[in-house]
This record gives sequence, C-alpha cells and structure tokens, in this order.
Amino acid sequence: MDNTKKVFREIKADAMLTASPDLRRYLTGFASSFGFVYTDAQESVFFTDPRYAEGVRAALKNSFVAVEVAKSEESVLDYIKTKKVKTLAVPMERVTLPQAALFKKKKFKLVDSMPALTAAMCVKTEEELACIRKACEIAEAAYTELLGLLKEGMSENETAGLLEYLMRKHGAFDRSFETIAAFGKNTSVPHHASCGDKLAKGMPVLLDFGCVYGGYCSDITRTFLFGDNGDTEFKEVYGRVLEAHMLAAEGIRAQMTGIQADAFARDHLKKYGLDKFFTHSLGHGIGVNIHEAPYLSARSGNILADGMVFSIEPGVYFEGKFGIRIEDSVTLENGRVQSLMKTDKRLTVL
Amino acid sequence: MDNTKKVFREIKADAMLTASPDLRRYLTGFASSFGFVYTDAQESVFFTDPRYAEGVRAALKNSFVAVEVAKSEESVLDYIKTKKVKTLAVPMERVTLPQAALFKKKKFKLVDSMPALTAAMCVKTEEELACIRKACEIAEAAYTELLGLLKEGMSENETAGLLEYLMRKHGAFDRSFETIAAFGKNTSVPHHASCGDKLAKGMPVLLDFGCVYGGYCSDITRTFLFGDNGDTEFKEVYGRVLEAHMLAAEGIRAQMTGIQADAFARDHLKKYGLDKFFTHSLGHGIGVNIHEAPYLSARSGNILADGMVFSIEPGVYFEGKFGIRIEDSVTLENGRVQSLMKTDKRLTVL
Repeated sequence: MDNTKKVFREIKADAMLTASPDLRRYLTGFASSFGFVYTDAQESVFFTDPRYAEGVRAALKNSFVAVEVAKSEESVLDYIKTKKVKTLAVPMERVTLPQAALFKKKKFKLVDSMPALTAAMCVKTEEELACIRKACEIAEAAYTELLGLLKEGMSENETAGLLEYLMRKHGAFDRSFETIAAFGKNTSVPHHASCGDKLAKGMPVLLDFGCVYGGYCSDITRTFLFGDNGDTEFKEVYGRVLEAHMLAAEGIRAQMTGIQADAFARDHLKKYGLDKFFTHSLGHGIGVNIHEAPYLSARSGNILADGMVFSIEPGVYFEGKFGIRIEDSVTLENGRVQSLMKTDKRLTVL
Repeated sequence: MDNTKKVFREIKADAMLTASPDLRRYLTGFASSFGFVYTDAQESVFFTDPRYAEGVRAALKNSFVAVEVAKSEESVLDYIKTKKVKTLAVPMERVTLPQAALFKKKKFKLVDSMPALTAAMCVKTEEELACIRKACEIAEAAYTELLGLLKEGMSENETAGLLEYLMRKHGAFDRSFETIAAFGKNTSVPHHASCGDKLAKGMPVLLDFGCVYGGYCSDITRTFLFGDNGDTEFKEVYGRVLEAHMLAAEGIRAQMTGIQADAFARDHLKKYGLDKFFTHSLGHGIGVNIHEAPYLSARSGNILADGMVFSIEPGVYFEGKFGIRIEDSVTLENGRVQSLMKTDKRLTVL
C-alpha cells in the first residue's frame, strides 16, 4: 500500500516528512520502529537504519517508495535541503522540542500534515477494509476456539496468552493491543491489566482483544458467564448493554457527529440509571492504529462517513462487583452500520 | 515501587510533571496508557481518567502516590498553578509542540527532568533486579518448553505466538516486545517481522524474545539449527559470534564506556572480517523499557556501573543467507558482568 501521494495531494507544502511509526506504516505499508518517510511532488523516500535496510528493501520492492539508509535525523534534513524545500509538512502534535529545534536550525517553515493524514486514514480503501475484515474473522475464529479450551483454574494471564496464540495460529500477524482478560470482579475495571487471578465457576469473564492482519487492526469485546451464577442483576444489566449496542448499530448514520452516535447508547442506559456507570466513550476509529479518528463520544464533533471503521462498545461497570462491555468493529456502508463481526452478542453461559 | 522521591531529589525545580507511560510506570509502579504524575517536595499525585481510576486506586493503595481524576492536561496544569509552582521539570525530549504551547500559556518555566530520570532508571534497586531476574527465568522456562514443541511446518507467527503464550503460562504478565521468530534466510534480517513462512528441516532458527514481570523486562536471543544442515560456514560463524559474546561478558567492567564495551565483540569479529556484518550495537539497557540507557555501542559515552542491567547481543547477518545473534540479559555486580540467563549458548541442533 502506498498512501504517500494520496496524503501529499492534500497538503500545501513543498514536501512532507513523517517519523511516527503508525503514520509511516500508513504511508508505506511497512512496519518498523525507526525511520523517516520523505515525500515531495516527484518522489517518496523511506530513510531507515542498517538494521531494517534489508527488510525495508524487500517489503517495498514493488512500491513507489525508494529506500535509503540514514545515519540520523539531521542527515535526513540535509537531504531535504538539497531538494530546495522551504515549507515542510510534519505532524505537529507528534513533533518534540528537540525535533522542533532541529527544523529551526535547518530553517524549514513548518506546516501541519496531521489534518490531511487523519482525514485520509479514517476513510478506508477497499484494500484496507479487506485487511480489517480478515483481522476480524481471525479474532472471532480464535475466540470460538478459546471458548472450548477455557478451564477452571486458568489465570487471566494464561487466558490472554492463549487467545493471542490462537489468533496467530489462525493467521494473524500479531495482536492489535494487549489482550484484556478479566475474571469475576476484575471485569469492573474497564482497562484491567490481566493478572494471575484464576477462573472459577459462575464468574463473569470479559475479553477485549483483536489482531493485526496486513498491518490493520480488529477490536472486539465479549462478556460471558463461566457457568450460571444465578445473578439476575448481571443478566438484566447485560440486556441493557446489548440493547444500547443494538440501538447504536441500528441508529448511527453517515453524516452524524460522534456526539450523536454516542447518544444512542448513552440515552438508552440513562433510562435505567446506568449512564453514570458507562464511564468511557461509545467507540473509536480502527485502522493501522487500534485507536484513531473518528471518535464516537459525548465531546466528539467528528463527522461519520462511508468507509470509516470504528468500534461500538457500550459498557457498564459496577466497582468491586462486575462490568459488562459488548464491542464490535463496524464499518459504514451506504450510510448505515455494517458489523464486521459474526459471533453472537447475546449472553453466553458456558 | 515509588521512585518519585528518588528522582525529585535530583531535580532543581519547584515540581515535576511526567506524562510518558514508561516514565510514569517507573515513578509509580503502575502501568497505564494515560495519566500524569505530579511531584513536589510535599506530595506525588497520579492524575488519571475515569477508565483507570478504580485500577489506579487499587494498585496504588499502599503507595505514597495519591490518585486524582483529571479531565484534561490543562486541568492538571491548573492544579499545579494552585501550588505556586514556577519552575516545572518535564522530560524535554518527550514534550510535543502542543504541550509546549500549553506550558507557555500557563507561564511555567521548564527544566529538563530527563537526565535525572535516565540516571535513576539505569541503576536498578534490589526490588527491580528481582523482577528482571524473574522475567529472565520465565523467558528461559518458556523457551525450553518451546524447543520440545517445535514441529516442521509451523509458521514463524505461530511459533512467536506459542512462545508468548508459554511465557504467560509460566507467570509472565506480558511479552516485553513483539517476539521475533525467523526461520531460514529470514534470520539475516536483524529485526525480521515474523510472518507465515514455515519451518523445515535443517533451517536456522532465530528467536528474540522476552517478557514482563512486575513491570520489568527480560530480553534474550537464541539461534539454533532445526536439524543439522551440514553447513560448515554457519557453524564456524556461530562459533565466532559466541566468542564475541563471551569476550564481552568476560571483559566488560564497571566504569567502562559503552564504546569500550562494544569493542570487545566488534574487535573480535573484525579479526575474521565479520565486523561489517555486525550491523547493530552490542547492547542496550533493560528496565521498564526494553530499550533504555545505558547503550553499548561504538558511539555511546554512557559509563557502565554496578546495578545496571543491559543486553550483550553480538550478531552477524549475511543478507539472503543466514543471520546469527546470541543475546543474554546481564547485570554488573562487583564491577563484573553476571549473566541473568542459564540456557546454553553453545550451538543447539534439534
């Protein structure tokens, strides 16, 4: 994938320089922890260090993007100087003070590339969407296999590790973020760090996970019971969260704002006094990053559009008791939500 | 672990504010993707968002560090304003342009906290060292188990996923970085991204992996043969890399520079014309980060000292043929290197 031209077209500057791993990944289709992508009207060059040189060359051999080995950020800027570049577009919110000092020393006039990058990244091409669909399919296949392998006494850590292994066995290139496996009352911590706590009969289980395929992420959360515990409150709240999810999935339309999207779930939970336990936003965009624009929250003015991919993930958390979150990765197609997930969202009791 | 006082003592400012996840992790012992740690002579406060509030409170309940919920970075700065703080220490190299603008708007005079953080982080306390030892022990137990499970036809991805799962099964809280599993000629790419390529008899296998225990990392690389392939060049080069490793492990002393440390391996490989294939540095510090100070490289003036933990990892890479890297996590004790690893570094032929 080469998105350098697509983004550069929208930028008013002589050239563009991009250093952040996720943005480089988006622009060139190649993942690496160090490098710079330079783009002007004539060329795109990936500057890398010797550790990556062979890998970058192999990965980009059919790409428009050329590969050069660079010693330092300063040597990349010196290269750009030879191109008579005066205005240089960089993602301002990622530029650090030492980098800013270097740009100043080299007398570049900076322009912000972030709005163009964000706008391009949030509407997916068919090729990008195909990768995300595959990442969703793999995550669900692994989850389905995991359900048959869960046993009393397994720790959260082991469960998270097993799920990540199964995703790779099913073809994922990696997890898309650190898997959250929460058992029992740990489910009430929305971003619980999986620990050594062990699974016992009747516990609620919350699994929030996803994988990477072709550089693109999937994201899904399921909450279920490891054996019936007779807790009617849990089942009732589960029903409300599921209703909130379905109302959002059915109601969200292209051209709505993130605020309007978020309200479908939040307003429904409010009817039952549950909105104060819905302590996060409804969703976030998904792409090369597990969290990116658009944001679906009570404060987000992002406008939704066809081709965007985002999560719908209402959740309710009772501190010290239990938490429930039900999340799909979805896309907007012909103005409406299409879920990319197939596993049942109704309450599973193992 | 509370390292806020230890670091603040070394800083000449009214207060210190830390936002980067790794530095927050080091200061408070708590891992989170969002938050700010504020420290002055009287108090330390962890500002978090509602998603983490319950988790932070539980994790820090026996700590000196208080917990507050913050709406935004600006609201944290407003809190600091109420403390009559004029000079504020921040890690300059992590400060972005929008953050710098916010500090300016609030009229703080900035001081760099990074040198004090780096100096504190690279010399480990007994408690930190115990976590790293355990992380090394777990990584090796998982590796030993993996060797018995490797089969012809397994993909690099599956192998990486299985190793990560085994580390968690053995008690790790997570991997410390994305596991590198490289088969055959893929071993020649020092930072190869594990892919779908499959294991066949006679292939060299390079595994670079590690895990997190108690928030601290381990890092190890082993290269071995999946069945003898009769390649005498491979065996000869393996011997040279192992010699380079052992010369470094035996020769490095406290008070040496990173340059001197790196030279033990590089000079040895040079004798055999192999130094030009040793395309990276000898090692890096290991702690809450998998890569941190001290750096052991041909350009690093870092001074080594007792209590530091770092990798020794000479490697030789023949593009398109094979690569060999042999890495231990080690510490300096009584001025000399103590490896934290026990698995054999001699060539294994499975």
